[in-house]
Amino acid sequence: MTDLILTTYDWVPPPPRGNVRDLRVRWALEEAGLEYRVESTPFAERGAEHLAHQPFNQVPWLTDGELTVFESGAILLHLGEKSPRLLPTDRRGRSEATQWVIAALNSVEAASQPWVLFHFMGQTDHAGFAFFEGFLKHRLTHLESVLAGREWLAGSFSVADIVMADVLRPIDRFGGLSEYPAAKAYMERAIARPAFQKALADQMTHFAAAD
Amino acid sequence: MTDLILTTYDWVPPPPRGNVRDLRVRWALEEAGLEYRVESTPFAERGAEHLAHQPFNQVPWLTDGELTVFESGAILLHLGEKSPRLLPTDRRGRSEATQWVIAALNSVEAASQPWVLFHFMGQTDHAGFAFFEGFLKHRLTHLESVLAGREWLAGSFSVADIVMADVLRPIDRFGGLSEYPAAKAYMERAIARPAFQKALADQMTHFAAAD
Repeated sequence: MTDLILTTYDWVPPPPRGNVRDLRVRWALEEAGLEYRVESTPFAERGAEHLAHQPFNQVPWLTDGELTVFESGAILLHLGEKSPRLLPTDRRGRSEATQWVIAALNSVEAASQPWVLFHFMGQTDHAGFAFFEGFLKHRLTHLESVLAGREWLAGSFSVADIVMADVLRPIDRFGGLSEYPAAKAYMERAIARPAFQKALADQMTHFAAAD
Repeated sequence: MTDLILTTYDWVPPPPRGNVRDLRVRWALEEAGLEYRVESTPFAERGAEHLAHQPFNQVPWLTDGELTVFESGAILLHLGEKSPRLLPTDRRGRSEATQWVIAALNSVEAASQPWVLFHFMGQTDHAGFAFFEGFLKHRLTHLESVLAGREWLAGSFSVADIVMADVLRPIDRFGGLSEYPAAKAYMERAIARPAFQKALADQMTHFAAAD
């Protein structure tokens, strides 16, 4: 019996495919070799049942027996408790991995998300864009110094690398890593892992099956 | 002997006072009644020593014996292990509080930060602003539904409420909560707590002392 159930949309339009956040959870589950199954919730009609699991009406959420967990970052920390391949078991390593999960979300993605959204909207000629670009570059410059000196963020590969690498992917897509070779090499190293490749292929297959 | 040392800037210019992120940590420490002391790092000159503690060259960081923790969200989760006043001890409550810490940072603050920055820059007449306002309103509408039905996010008051309330403060400062009465009442309920009031007064005194 599989206790772990990952719920994502039944379908999404092509543009976000490969970037829907169930990817981060699939990746972690594959890294840890945990048994799980994937269920679908309607993309088009999101009702009270959906909101009860994910209060912002998004995906994914994870069901673990009686527990339901939303926010991909929180799901990864939750899964980290189940496998040392996801979260180091020593106090320092565990603390470092947690810090870098939060840093990926709040120091890097909080800066990259507006920059990425401006690109998606095709509004990079806005005065506002320059400000957000400066904000992102400031963060990437610091991240570059860190990544120039280590293979993974918290000693060994961990959930921190899953979040950070997936935060870097859309930046790279719009050419934002060209001045940051260590960050780019780190991202490429992370997404070359078989667990990421399987997670990505599984997400693409899942959404394509509903076309 | 005090093992917990919170490090923040020695001084900041007046505008960010009351919003520097050591506030979230002070608030948690006061809620838990944990003994701590505050140390300063130069705002004007940030060297290698600073970067070793906070790789993005920001504040705060917490020293707990041999361990150094950065990212206010990670510091709050770390402190949560020390007090049930910060993090419920039952599995479900603990999981919910963690989810809401991440949600506050990644679902709400990631949407509010661009909106707040546009306000700070005085560029709310930009076409880009309307997009980010829509993004924020979407998130606040969902948060409003949640907060209309509960006093605190995870059963009892927790670190999740510290982060969420502090994320809502700058939104409220620019009038962004006027259509969200439950969120506004929640924020006011949180910041009326003596621990917040002490934390805020202490931060203001700390920075004013260096003027």
